[in-house]
Amino acid sequence: MTKKVAVLTSGGDAPGMNACIRAIVLACERADYSVLGYMHGFNGLLHQEYRLLDGRSVHNLIQQGGTMLRSARCKEFEGREEAKRAADNLRQLEVDTLIIIGGDGSFRGAVHLSQFWEGQLLGLPGTIDNDIQGTDVTIGYHTAIETAVTSIDKVRDTADSFERIFLVEVMGRRAGFLGLNAALASAADYVILPELFESEEQTLEAIMQQLTKRRRERGDVSYIIVLAENLWPKGVNDLAEQLTKLTESEVKPVILGHVQRGGSPVSQDRLLATRLGAYAVSLVGSDISGIMIGECHGKPVKVPLPSTWQKRKPLDEFTVSTMESLMNNRYA
Amino acid sequence: MTKKVAVLTSGGDAPGMNACIRAIVLACERADYSVLGYMHGFNGLLHQEYRLLDGRSVHNLIQQGGTMLRSARCKEFEGREEAKRAADNLRQLEVDTLIIIGGDGSFRGAVHLSQFWEGQLLGLPGTIDNDIQGTDVTIGYHTAIETAVTSIDKVRDTADSFERIFLVEVMGRRAGFLGLNAALASAADYVILPELFESEEQTLEAIMQQLTKRRRERGDVSYIIVLAENLWPKGVNDLAEQLTKLTESEVKPVILGHVQRGGSPVSQDRLLATRLGAYAVSLVGSDISGIMIGECHGKPVKVPLPSTWQKRKPLDEFTVSTMESLMNNRYA
Amino acid sequence: MTKKVAVLTSGGDAPGMNACIRAIVLACERADYSVLGYMHGFNGLLHQEYRLLDGRSVHNLIQQGGTMLRSARCKEFEGREEAKRAADNLRQLEVDTLIIIGGDGSFRGAVHLSQFWEGQLLGLPGTIDNDIQGTDVTIGYHTAIETAVTSIDKVRDTADSFERIFLVEVMGRRAGFLGLNAALASAADYVILPELFESEEQTLEAIMQQLTKRRRERGDVSYIIVLAENLWPKGVNDLAEQLTKLTESEVKPVILGHVQRGGSPVSQDRLLATRLGAYAVSLVGSDISGIMIGECHGKPVKVPLPSTWQKRKPLDEFTVSTMESLMNNRYA
Amino acid sequence: MTKKVAVLTSGGDAPGMNACIRAIVLACERADYSVLGYMHGFNGLLHQEYRLLDGRSVHNLIQQGGTMLRSARCKEFEGREEAKRAADNLRQLEVDTLIIIGGDGSFRGAVHLSQFWEGQLLGLPGTIDNDIQGTDVTIGYHTAIETAVTSIDKVRDTADSFERIFLVEVMGRRAGFLGLNAALASAADYVILPELFESEEQTLEAIMQQLTKRRRERGDVSYIIVLAENLWPKGVNDLAEQLTKLTESEVKPVILGHVQRGGSPVSQDRLLATRLGAYAVSLVGSDISGIMIGECHGKPVKVPLPSTWQKRKPLDEFTVSTMESLMNNRYA
Repeated sequence: MTKKVAVLTSGGDAPGMNACIRAIVLACERADYSVLGYMHGFNGLLHQEYRLLDGRSVHNLIQQGGTMLRSARCKEFEGREEAKRAADNLRQLEVDTLIIIGGDGSFRGAVHLSQFWEGQLLGLPGTIDNDIQGTDVTIGYHTAIETAVTSIDKVRDTADSFERIFLVEVMGRRAGFLGLNAALASAADYVILPELFESEEQTLEAIMQQLTKRRRERGDVSYIIVLAENLWPKGVNDLAEQLTKLTESEVKPVILGHVQRGGSPVSQDRLLATRLGAYAVSLVGSDISGIMIGECHGKPVKVPLPSTWQKRKPLDEFTVSTMESLMNNRYA
Repeated sequence: MTKKVAVLTSGGDAPGMNACIRAIVLACERADYSVLGYMHGFNGLLHQEYRLLDGRSVHNLIQQGGTMLRSARCKEFEGREEAKRAADNLRQLEVDTLIIIGGDGSFRGAVHLSQFWEGQLLGLPGTIDNDIQGTDVTIGYHTAIETAVTSIDKVRDTADSFERIFLVEVMGRRAGFLGLNAALASAADYVILPELFESEEQTLEAIMQQLTKRRRERGDVSYIIVLAENLWPKGVNDLAEQLTKLTESEVKPVILGHVQRGGSPVSQDRLLATRLGAYAVSLVGSDISGIMIGECHGKPVKVPLPSTWQKRKPLDEFTVSTMESLMNNRYA
Repeated sequence: MTKKVAVLTSGGDAPGMNACIRAIVLACERADYSVLGYMHGFNGLLHQEYRLLDGRSVHNLIQQGGTMLRSARCKEFEGREEAKRAADNLRQLEVDTLIIIGGDGSFRGAVHLSQFWEGQLLGLPGTIDNDIQGTDVTIGYHTAIETAVTSIDKVRDTADSFERIFLVEVMGRRAGFLGLNAALASAADYVILPELFESEEQTLEAIMQQLTKRRRERGDVSYIIVLAENLWPKGVNDLAEQLTKLTESEVKPVILGHVQRGGSPVSQDRLLATRLGAYAVSLVGSDISGIMIGECHGKPVKVPLPSTWQKRKPLDEFTVSTMESLMNNRYA
Repeated sequence: MTKKVAVLTSGGDAPGMNACIRAIVLACERADYSVLGYMHGFNGLLHQEYRLLDGRSVHNLIQQGGTMLRSARCKEFEGREEAKRAADNLRQLEVDTLIIIGGDGSFRGAVHLSQFWEGQLLGLPGTIDNDIQGTDVTIGYHTAIETAVTSIDKVRDTADSFERIFLVEVMGRRAGFLGLNAALASAADYVILPELFESEEQTLEAIMQQLTKRRRERGDVSYIIVLAENLWPKGVNDLAEQLTKLTESEVKPVILGHVQRGGSPVSQDRLLATRLGAYAVSLVGSDISGIMIGECHGKPVKVPLPSTWQKRKPLDEFTVSTMESLMNNRYA
């Protein structure tokens, strides 16, 4: 029996969301399922705003950043009446399966909806932050690292030319995945992460100790510090000023900002998005529901939606120990 | 008779400075001239800090951002004693020709030095700002446009996904070349430039008028404003806040910052740097001195150094009229 | 009085054709002209296959390679009956102005059509080859250089690692613009171009002389030769084999091929396409017809269509002399 | 007690080899080990050609393609006398640990050497082919996928513009990892891989069946086939000709070639190279020898060198099943 599948993207946009939509549409086409896309995240569900999708509509989509279905954060959707309306809308269109691509906020919305809708609900992890428990990686994460690293490579050209200190703020709301990997891959000298943050004093002292040693050994040198956003109590500009005083050199802040969200997805994000999207369609019609499909050790996994946000996902140990052996050195 | 050529890079670094050094070194090698590079701009000249250069030292240099000779701004060099010391150092090394790659500050330094040194002085325009009179383009300018455009392309992905307004600050200290071209090439909707700036009120009104029309015609849409740095009296964050109130949508500021200076030079900058560097060497030993070599209409030109800063270089008319016919539309 | 404008793209696709279509559509929208796009080059004109275009249809188009209107080479169109049918189709749709983006083959088609159609005909130069007389640059040319240079940069990594000789074939049917600039910007060691080609013997001898000198001075080194396509009588593989014997090292051929046509246009192509497109619309309704709009010395120029192909466009002198002073060195 | 570590790169160069050298040098510096790099793979070992390495020598190395230590394939090294001489050289320099970055050929060389040298031997997997058993990924593999995908994205622009069929040959000597992932990430329509190759007839039939269905459903469309090199018996040009006849459309071959080896490593390769390099140094001085350090499921693993080549590494199942559900469709 044929099925009707709906898909939406919600929360911050992430490169690879389009590649995931494409995979879902093509896999559905092959299985003879019909597909529609709700626009603007849960808003589209509330206002029955959607478009039909087929192979033509996703041609040349794999390489595009952002999301063709638009996204939104939808405060409104937290209410009971709203979720009921959404459920009615899904019933009216006879949707069998709703696939939600997004982060933990989106998955909370999905669980809320499931109280009022009996259909099949599947989540796919789409966020540049990688802060979703139960999957090794999330769609958009690899591209965001690449974008940050490409930017820091450029900053290093000036840092080297002037033998100057730069302080680069990268995204990563509550988690240091992006900051840690961007710092390590761009050969930064120090990284300040939520998971490893002790105190302002300790941080400043460690930086000064390492920098002093470096200058003694190699003379004036460039030095790049990567800082996760929203971590330094008074902000990146305050830290730059403090370091300017301490180091007696002008420390320049660089805020990468929203540039990190966009761009054509790198291959790894296209591939992850494609694998997860095609796998989700293979579950359509089964009694599996209320789960996120993630990837662990190269295999698909099914994670109950609440497990994706209940525990904090730890940084990868191998990467942390590598960082400790090459950066952030303290010399006791 | 063989010659001794010295080269230095000064002021803000610009992509293509290395390509220019390479061309100078290779052209000298071919002409059997010896070459040395002073380190850290005029500082190297003051402290006789230099390195010998040959074909090997510039292998694989063409594609690297920054400058292998380091750069610096050198306040100290404005004094008479310092310039005399530099002249003595040049005499001591028996330098025949000094080639200075930099912007107007560097050329002022060259003129200052020429009061005390009788050797041949040649300037080459190296700055991402393109604000040097007497040359159509400067080394680094095309790469900086490309970097800004690539970043704004990424911002547009999020702007489109959320149908949101973004305000992007690009470099361009006193001139709008970078801002104008980056805005036009990234399909931005509005651009605020020093050359065309009337008042805060006029700007806000024009934006609101255009945005209102756009929304009426196309519904909620993404909208990108490009702002030249240091132009808005209270800064980019203040403008973002004002626009947030006026548009009743969250307007996000993005500051591209020092990322714009670095990166592997694009072909046009490699080519310009190579043409100018090779041409400079062809003048070594002639009685031409105290000039900058620029490029106008695809041909090399010689411009007396003071002419490079005495008049303000105007924006290109064809580009301005194109901008006016596609962006910044006011509807009287 | 309002006007009706039609646009088509013809011949080999070139990055920036989309940016040009966008500029035409937006400028028309502003002038209250209606616009339609014929599909598949002159084929669309023959079969009345077109689509209406407006601001929405060109959103986010500026950065896309290829052409949304598709392209084709259209042998059929050389006939009289076909041109008459096309003229009838244009009259039926009440088209006032037809803008053709393409190369010399496309402009010949335009002249042929003009015998049968009384409307306004404007050409815009779109080809990666830059072989159109009357304009300094063509849409797509800068991107093609960039693509070739980026590829040769990668080849150099292996060439350096193995101190090996590589022979890279770049596009450029009958003209060496692409080859010359790609070679110079990628720090290639030798370039073989139609405009400067004397004989096979002379070329092989010059390469061997330069290579022998290089090896004597610097030991085993990497060495990169750039070859324009269709130039070496028996092809790139034959040349590689001959060089392998002569140099007693394995010489690897690399054929860049169709990769050079595609890709997101670089800023310079987006800007050129935008300037020319907007300017073309400013001429709509005037009595200027049968011309190509090009750009010389940064200003728009109007060139009678036959002049664009009647003389061979020479290589830029400044670039050729730079090449001669840094590459292809012969040591008499 | 301090240690002396030597490192060499051997076999085909791979992006990230430099990042790996850097990590080894920095980790050694931190542990107070001295480090030297043998040049030109095993040749340097035979001829005692090496250079001392420290933090300065690897500055700004992480982002560079190729290998600063050069590479080579070294037939000569298969002899007993040669291996003995290499062992003597290692003893003469008092090397405690030799780290070899390369592929299976390099590891065979390491095992051969171990018969004559009692020191510690560690291998690290560096090859774009990913065909090394015992590690999930190899250094250079992710960059090679990215390079291939970026190229195919460009080919698609022309394929779409002309609704034409392209046949793209990617590297992958004996394994389809690169081809499979590049095809899937570039939205290719069909992929021909060694692991899944049945016969020429079956392949041609499957392509024709899929293409006919596509044309029936969507009209003339672009169609991209990815082919692993050295797989089609008479070569890529022969296949293009056969397909041209069968499809009655011109099928254009594109050979990506050596471009795929070079380029700045993507973040994932920089990170893998850095993790493996730092981990290798943590084993210096232990009694672990004769092993390759790979990475499985995000953790370091130690694999006896012969195990790396004795079994054929299978393609990843999840990726194969994804490919089967979206591409290469046969319709029974």
